[in-house]
Amino acid sequence: MSKGQFNHMTDKASSRLSPHTRTLANSLVSIVGLGLMGGSLAWALRERRACREVVGVARREETVALALERGVVDRATCDLAEGVQEADIVVLATPVRTILRLLGEIGPLLPEGCLVMDVGSTKREIVAAMERLPPHIRPLGGHPMCGKEKAGLEAAEPGLYEGKAFVLTPLERTPPEAVELGRELVEAVGARPVLMDAERHDYIVAAVSHLPYLLACGLMAAVDDLAQSDDACWQLAASGFRDTSRLAASDVTMMLDILLTNRKPVLEALAAFERRLQELVSLLEKGDEGGLRVFMEVVAQKRESL
Amino acid sequence: MSKGQFNHMTDKASSRLSPHTRTLANSLVSIVGLGLMGGSLAWALRERRACREVVGVARREETVALALERGVVDRATCDLAEGVQEADIVVLATPVRTILRLLGEIGPLLPEGCLVMDVGSTKREIVAAMERLPPHIRPLGGHPMCGKEKAGLEAAEPGLYEGKAFVLTPLERTPPEAVELGRELVEAVGARPVLMDAERHDYIVAAVSHLPYLLACGLMAAVDDLAQSDDACWQLAASGFRDTSRLAASDVTMMLDILLTNRKPVLEALAAFERRLQELVSLLEKGDEGGLRVFMEVVAQKRESL
Repeated sequence: MSKGQFNHMTDKASSRLSPHTRTLANSLVSIVGLGLMGGSLAWALRERRACREVVGVARREETVALALERGVVDRATCDLAEGVQEADIVVLATPVRTILRLLGEIGPLLPEGCLVMDVGSTKREIVAAMERLPPHIRPLGGHPMCGKEKAGLEAAEPGLYEGKAFVLTPLERTPPEAVELGRELVEAVGARPVLMDAERHDYIVAAVSHLPYLLACGLMAAVDDLAQSDDACWQLAASGFRDTSRLAASDVTMMLDILLTNRKPVLEALAAFERRLQELVSLLEKGDEGGLRVFMEVVAQKRESL
Repeated sequence: MSKGQFNHMTDKASSRLSPHTRTLANSLVSIVGLGLMGGSLAWALRERRACREVVGVARREETVALALERGVVDRATCDLAEGVQEADIVVLATPVRTILRLLGEIGPLLPEGCLVMDVGSTKREIVAAMERLPPHIRPLGGHPMCGKEKAGLEAAEPGLYEGKAFVLTPLERTPPEAVELGRELVEAVGARPVLMDAERHDYIVAAVSHLPYLLACGLMAAVDDLAQSDDACWQLAASGFRDTSRLAASDVTMMLDILLTNRKPVLEALAAFERRLQELVSLLEKGDEGGLRVFMEVVAQKRESL
């Protein structure tokens, strides 16, 4: 055995810390998926020198090249096994249903004690899939409350997480020191950890995130129907329309995964919205000025106090 | 009669130009209502030296004082008769139902040939009230497609109209040179005149402006219902929620007047929206991935092309 090989093995061995002495600073972090969310996370960790090394795993060679060129990661590969084999922390940063698939495959590829996190926008199905990981893996669900309409590494920026809430959903099997390590990672990129269980998370985001998306889609479709017979429609669409419909331009694959893995909470949020909208319709049909004013003043005050 | 008085009368007589030789540059413009819209319009006209003089009419003495202090107008008064008696152009810039009331009172106060415009957000009822003005008055409906959530002169800015569409709705009785003068005023503040009839305007804005407002209200109310039992809701409301709900903070008096003077088009826009939302609900209930993807891709493309 040559000295070089021996040194390499020593380095590798020393890099595998016990889960109990692991901190973010001495961890190798592998980010699987270098799109907007994963790319921004890798970039933020690297720019802040928050961990020992950032390794990226991407599906396409061009993404690997771009990530290296921009300095988003220290190393990158298209090979999942190679990308995670030395990881202390793995963060899955793909659309939700790809995360679910990866969780079914990744177990045997991970070193003992590895912390597996994700940034998927729904948590119940992901946490259920994490439950099935081998016992020597430490899983922790995650969902940062930030994003953009533009997807992909091109849109990534190291400041994306700054000041944003980042939900962490521990499993019963997640040891406290794994939660602490996840919290450390979240704080390292400038985000604010919010701990809650997966089911509660999914009900809340159905209302504050998936419902607004569906309203934006419905609005775009309804106005487009009208625009078929009157093209001046788009000419008169001002900033109010643009803001209200902005989410309709979200990445379709990401949103489709979200909706299909969160159907029950989303349908309940839609029903709650429809009850309130129907209340407005009925006040307007009756020309009930007093009732309308009360409804409108209450929501205006709430909105201003946000 | 003293020389001063005589001179005053001569000045006044010479200021009353024939409607046929009137241009914006030689016009005295009276703006009734010095809130966000009227204040910004007055300020833009004055800053660009677009007309001979800008006179403001406000309800409260404090607004008159603030308008003079900020240089928004050349002169200002709380007395409507005094404010409009020498006007070549009067612009009514109050909530819609106040415009309707003013149109019923202002006729006898206006000099011969005066152009009366407005900036009200619905046009059918206003144009009907303009129809009843004395025959020597020249009416022209108007609606600039801009605004802010914050109301009042404090929020006014001379650049508010820049690059925005400004709908003009001439009546059958409106002579072409009056339309031209209105168009000149619109262009002078940097806006883009869009001519259409009042009914068509009201149907379009019901869809692109009043519907988004009602969706924002319904969204705020629905999420507030959920937040009653889970206060983490607001913590997780990110930029997507903020944009989609932004219009719910609009000025209530202004929006109430808009809804109540545009009920039929607004109810039709709501019905068109509900049909499309119901389509989404049904696709989601069935878990129809292909159908959802098509719906979402179509609206995403439309939204991106805006």
